Amino acid sequence: MRGNEAKGGFPYYIRLGDALGLVLKELKRLPSEKVKLVESLNRVSAVDVVAPFNVPPFDRAAVDGYAVRASDTIGASELHPKRLKVVGSCVTGVRSSLLVHAGQAVEISTGAPLPKGADAVIAVERCRKENGYVLIFEPVPRWRNVSREGEDVREGEIVLKAGKRIGPADIGLLAACGYSEVRVSVKPTVFIIPTGTELVEPGKILHDAKVYDIDSYSIAASVLHTGGAPVLSQRVKDDKSSIRKAIRQGLRYDMILVIGGSSVGKSDFVPSAIAEEGKLLFHGVAIRPGSPTSFGIIRGKPIFSLPGFPAGCLIAFEFLVRPALEYMLGLEEPRMKIRAKLGRTIASALGRVDVVRVRLEQRDGTWVAYPIRITGSSVLSSVARADGFILVPEEVERIEEGAEVEVVLCR
Amino acid sequence: MRGNEAKGGFPYYIRLGDALGLVLKELKRLPSEKVKLVESLNRVSAVDVVAPFNVPPFDRAAVDGYAVRASDTIGASELHPKRLKVVGSCVTGVRSSLLVHAGQAVEISTGAPLPKGADAVIAVERCRKENGYVLIFEPVPRWRNVSREGEDVREGEIVLKAGKRIGPADIGLLAACGYSEVRVSVKPTVFIIPTGTELVEPGKILHDAKVYDIDSYSIAASVLHTGGAPVLSQRVKDDKSSIRKAIRQGLRYDMILVIGGSSVGKSDFVPSAIAEEGKLLFHGVAIRPGSPTSFGIIRGKPIFSLPGFPAGCLIAFEFLVRPALEYMLGLEEPRMKIRAKLGRTIASALGRVDVVRVRLEQRDGTWVAYPIRITGSSVLSSVARADGFILVPEEVERIEEGAEVEVVLCR
Repeated sequence: MRGNEAKGGFPYYIRLGDALGLVLKELKRLPSEKVKLVESLNRVSAVDVVAPFNVPPFDRAAVDGYAVRASDTIGASELHPKRLKVVGSCVTGVRSSLLVHAGQAVEISTGAPLPKGADAVIAVERCRKENGYVLIFEPVPRWRNVSREGEDVREGEIVLKAGKRIGPADIGLLAACGYSEVRVSVKPTVFIIPTGTELVEPGKILHDAKVYDIDSYSIAASVLHTGGAPVLSQRVKDDKSSIRKAIRQGLRYDMILVIGGSSVGKSDFVPSAIAEEGKLLFHGVAIRPGSPTSFGIIRGKPIFSLPGFPAGCLIAFEFLVRPALEYMLGLEEPRMKIRAKLGRTIASALGRVDVVRVRLEQRDGTWVAYPIRITGSSVLSSVARADGFILVPEEVERIEEGAEVEVVLCR
Repeated sequence: MRGNEAKGGFPYYIRLGDALGLVLKELKRLPSEKVKLVESLNRVSAVDVVAPFNVPPFDRAAVDGYAVRASDTIGASELHPKRLKVVGSCVTGVRSSLLVHAGQAVEISTGAPLPKGADAVIAVERCRKENGYVLIFEPVPRWRNVSREGEDVREGEIVLKAGKRIGPADIGLLAACGYSEVRVSVKPTVFIIPTGTELVEPGKILHDAKVYDIDSYSIAASVLHTGGAPVLSQRVKDDKSSIRKAIRQGLRYDMILVIGGSSVGKSDFVPSAIAEEGKLLFHGVAIRPGSPTSFGIIRGKPIFSLPGFPAGCLIAFEFLVRPALEYMLGLEEPRMKIRAKLGRTIASALGRVDVVRVRLEQRDGTWVAYPIRITGSSVLSSVARADGFILVPEEVERIEEGAEVEVVLCR
């Protein structure tokens, strides 16, 4: 290392994978809470949920028609239809005491429990009713048009795994099992501390060389998007005592994110504030953009220092903070990745992960990934326009146009 | 068609594409409203938003270090460093009146505006300060470590297109432009009418052949997931006057979904209720599951009748109602699709679209799509476990294991 000024500098850029490993080792899973069904959308299931009974709970008609014994339909044809006596009707919601004997049929509506004796349903539009009889024009196999007891879920089967992000069909399955609530991980509360006197709230007028506060908003949205609850702190002056004070205020939340002031200059107080309040685990990660990222633990609470430049800030969130929040939530779903052909050669630097923002286009049935722009930790528009990211590993210097690459999808 | 009972039956199953065409032709775009930045996450932008100035608004240092004239660094080396006189310092947030002359340098912190005369920044860790001078050990090109004015967005450029679902980076870009609010499509309000006396609210005890109401919850969640606002009606008896009354109540919302009672039996009152209240455009779609789906317009409001069986209900939502809501929202992003190898042969029926639910697994870098179960409009667990859907077209009877297929991702 060179230069007196660099004493507080990055002595060593930790590899992205190692950084993530250190982070995850320090984290604890969040407790759980019960929420109402519809409010559970996109929350993370905290437990394996088991079906308390078979779904559907009984054999039932899948169409409107006639419940019959399949054996009575053998030999039925257009020319020689079988005639079955209609002995009653079954409606939805009521368990019937009817018994279907040989030569008999029972009118039945969709969803109604199959009467005893019957083992198939003939759709109404495939037969004809005539003077108390129904004419059947074709043989049917057993269980035709019957939705069997337990065909969806068997009693004791897991209908929702712990660690799953809950979707509409999961909510339907829980309802089918009679659950009106579901146990999910609580939302991690995340205290966001923007630093820097140059920051102005959007909507206000800019003076001098002030700039709008970008990261507070993009990071609050990222926290929401991941399933957390962001709490925005006041903007804090970039001096150590102000930052330490704000950090202490943040200790009642589940995580603290300090934005800005994380480079190596003289106003770089955040990492040392972390070290003084608790334990600094790393300062500087070999990722681009986003390298001036630090992490520590203060009284059991994880704290990240993220770079102020907006693209770097979002990328550091995406590949360090988001996995941390997902771990705390207990989420066990990997991010969706697709294979694509690289649309333009990428030059990268050895020794760090380059996060290349790409647009995806479908060409002759395959995805082509076009790098958007390759430089600039402040170039936020490259992230906004991206459909996904290519992570160029530390030991790769160049990926040629046409090579197959893996793209991590943005959503 | 056969049978007296079938008079009200499906005279003709409209093709999925044609059904969707009829739906979209009838819909109107929703009005827009302004919302605060962070609340705009996942909303749909209603207008093209233009940058009112360059972002960043001035040339600024991308690292802490020294602002210099690049030409002064020519010939610098380890053995023969260049010595530049440090004539002042520039800090973030303040526009400096300093001028950097030949042979001079100015201390600068990350994000500070570049002083006049300078055209590059040398990172602090790459030089050494010595008695009011800074020693430079290597030549730098112009604009090294400078984040140029407008490099992210140029004044007048579109930063957010109409029809985009707003993500964290979009919110950051809007903040960068000083916007504290953004104009989005209002959320479509969707009135959900569950029909059937057999339905019981989850959490209550089941008697007789009652079943839990599943669809109200899965469909309300689907509406939320698409960006709408669900409003749940009381459960309605499956008779025409009750249904017509509920439909009339729903006319103050943007869309009505009636669930259940849409098959061809004698209690099949919904399509005729729609026809009597307004105009029925189709009844029965050639899709499986989900075929007993109808659509109409009543006093300008779109109304769908969805099948009661839970998988069919969700699939009909996914491929007819969701595109309708997205159209009303003005969303202009296609759903994500990937190519995969089919893991097991699919047998399908001619003349209808079969929606096959698949799990995706990565094998040797390619996705393999395994059909989950191929039958049952009530088999909701197949939808809950699905990573995506394969739509087998009307004219395809069979897709062989190993064939390349297109999978529509669930999320």
